[in-house]
Amino acid sequence: MNTTVEALQQHQYWMQKAIALAQQGQYSTRPNPNVGCVIVKDGQMVGAGFHPQAGQPHAEVFALRQAGELARGATAYVTLEPCAHYGRTPPCAKGLVEAGVAKVIVACSDPNPLVAGKGVQILKDAGIEVEVGICEKEAAVLNRGFLKAMSTGMPYVRLKVASSLDGRTAMASGESKWITGSEARQDVQHWRAISGAVITGIDTILADDPQINVRHLPNIEIDSIVQPQRIILDRQGRLPLTAQILQQPDTVMVMGPFREELAQLGVVQLEIQSLFNLLKTLKDFHIYDVMIEAGATLSTAFLQAHLVDEVISYVAPTFLGQSARAMFNASFEQMAQQLRFKLENVTQLGQDIRLRLIPLQESV
Amino acid sequence: MNTTVEALQQHQYWMQKAIALAQQGQYSTRPNPNVGCVIVKDGQMVGAGFHPQAGQPHAEVFALRQAGELARGATAYVTLEPCAHYGRTPPCAKGLVEAGVAKVIVACSDPNPLVAGKGVQILKDAGIEVEVGICEKEAAVLNRGFLKAMSTGMPYVRLKVASSLDGRTAMASGESKWITGSEARQDVQHWRAISGAVITGIDTILADDPQINVRHLPNIEIDSIVQPQRIILDRQGRLPLTAQILQQPDTVMVMGPFREELAQLGVVQLEIQSLFNLLKTLKDFHIYDVMIEAGATLSTAFLQAHLVDEVISYVAPTFLGQSARAMFNASFEQMAQQLRFKLENVTQLGQDIRLRLIPLQESV
Repeated sequence: MNTTVEALQQHQYWMQKAIALAQQGQYSTRPNPNVGCVIVKDGQMVGAGFHPQAGQPHAEVFALRQAGELARGATAYVTLEPCAHYGRTPPCAKGLVEAGVAKVIVACSDPNPLVAGKGVQILKDAGIEVEVGICEKEAAVLNRGFLKAMSTGMPYVRLKVASSLDGRTAMASGESKWITGSEARQDVQHWRAISGAVITGIDTILADDPQINVRHLPNIEIDSIVQPQRIILDRQGRLPLTAQILQQPDTVMVMGPFREELAQLGVVQLEIQSLFNLLKTLKDFHIYDVMIEAGATLSTAFLQAHLVDEVISYVAPTFLGQSARAMFNASFEQMAQQLRFKLENVTQLGQDIRLRLIPLQESV
Repeated sequence: MNTTVEALQQHQYWMQKAIALAQQGQYSTRPNPNVGCVIVKDGQMVGAGFHPQAGQPHAEVFALRQAGELARGATAYVTLEPCAHYGRTPPCAKGLVEAGVAKVIVACSDPNPLVAGKGVQILKDAGIEVEVGICEKEAAVLNRGFLKAMSTGMPYVRLKVASSLDGRTAMASGESKWITGSEARQDVQHWRAISGAVITGIDTILADDPQINVRHLPNIEIDSIVQPQRIILDRQGRLPLTAQILQQPDTVMVMGPFREELAQLGVVQLEIQSLFNLLKTLKDFHIYDVMIEAGATLSTAFLQAHLVDEVISYVAPTFLGQSARAMFNASFEQMAQQLRFKLENVTQLGQDIRLRLIPLQESV
């Protein structure tokens, strides 16, 4: 029994390293998932790699290259099931077989129909010992959207809210600069940067004329990241052609009535029937992680439709008073109607706090 | 220089022990302050004590008794300046002189006009080396109310608020059981128990008929604590004689028009001109720490009058909607009018969080 516990601890130790490697691609691999790989022989790491960017080799390729002949008989730790299909690169499962590894430890299965157990099967067919599920939870965090979209067709949806302690997002006049401080606003950039798209409403565009892109990440060259696409809900076609958000090269999608002048600017336009359909459509665009940054009306609509997987809530230590705008504008009569969350964690960011909240009623 | 740093670290080490001892009296010494004392000789603790209860000996007495002859030439660490006056016990400064200690290290001076430097003077006059200010901040936390009241005449005022993430305290109907969970509600008991009085409004009494006493503290015999006095603001004399709060032996004070039937029940009655005057009056009743647990109107009034030293804010991860009752019901037009706080810290309590907030505009 002791050896089993020790082996498990060894596996977890090396898988943590693979996860840390995978994380290095968190801002740049989209729409591909983040993957890390470590090759271990006789207790020594002989190869390590991560997937840096779509079109670049997969994590296993970098790790096997580094290991060279030492890969023979070694154990490979991979955060996501090795791929089984010929894409821009040959299948990694084959690569591991050819390198002669003896054992492959996998954190998460890949629900992508192109892989989905086939990677593991290739390994097993070649006589390689395979174990799946080591540090699965931690590894799944790397690819929340990818894993959810591949298995359900829906993206992982994060809703950002920023409010005062008394639940207000702006004065009645719309004045809102700044409720939260610079640390909280900087933190938002991280969540945008791991998202395939940021969704906002036309009212936010008309009020603040924001760019909604990623402008700064600590120790990261901004040019090296994949900017999220920006999606504007604009049912009445009110988006001005002079809007800041249209002045950038990154993709903008508008959900609303078709407008010729937007088409000429290269804006992707889609009709939407419902918020659910909007989200469902995004898989066709390889958008798996969505961040909603909108006013109370749209945010409340997403929440009430149970389309949100996680709320990222920034709270500033201030009271704005009862005539300021409410952050959540549904009306309930009874406590039983309340929208409750599981508190994942709370963090202090400068003078503000950030809550990560999971709706108790599961999202669609 | 090295010896000085070492001596300081030694002083801090022993003073921390004295502070931890003092804390043992946190629920039982009122209206007296919490005090701890440690006697150290040749690097060994030879005596230790704390003040357990008004009428009982002071911390120094217990520590000197334990040290006996070993006190001669020793160093005494006391969290609060030793008293200089004959009260229910003889002055501790004298006791330290008679015991023959060589050195006395004090955390906080005692601003009580009966002491205020006289304790230190007695020691110095007897040729004892005295150092004041070691771990002063940590020690001051033990006696926030006492220290403030002795130096300014005003109590230290804590305002408790409990709200949803969208800043609501109850549904429009008044339904509010329960927004926060049991850990948060248990935490409230601690703050009540270190308070000389809890202030509430008549509307809270009429709505919930609460007892507002301390019913449970972890690992503490409830009979051993000094219950806070309960103060009800009742400008129109609406307190029903059948209210739960009147059915207990502990003191109730009512601020409102004089009523003969309350006098017969032994209720202390006082007129109030203003919230400021109400608080100022409390020193005559030896109430130095006040906890406000009231509805939004009274809480907002205390905040707007800048009478609050600290807000203890419990936030539950739920949205109650915009027709639910606002926690703070002043109305501001501009961000410049907002009531901002310094975030002291944030703690997770079960599924809720607790923020400790200090108003940026200092209290009166």
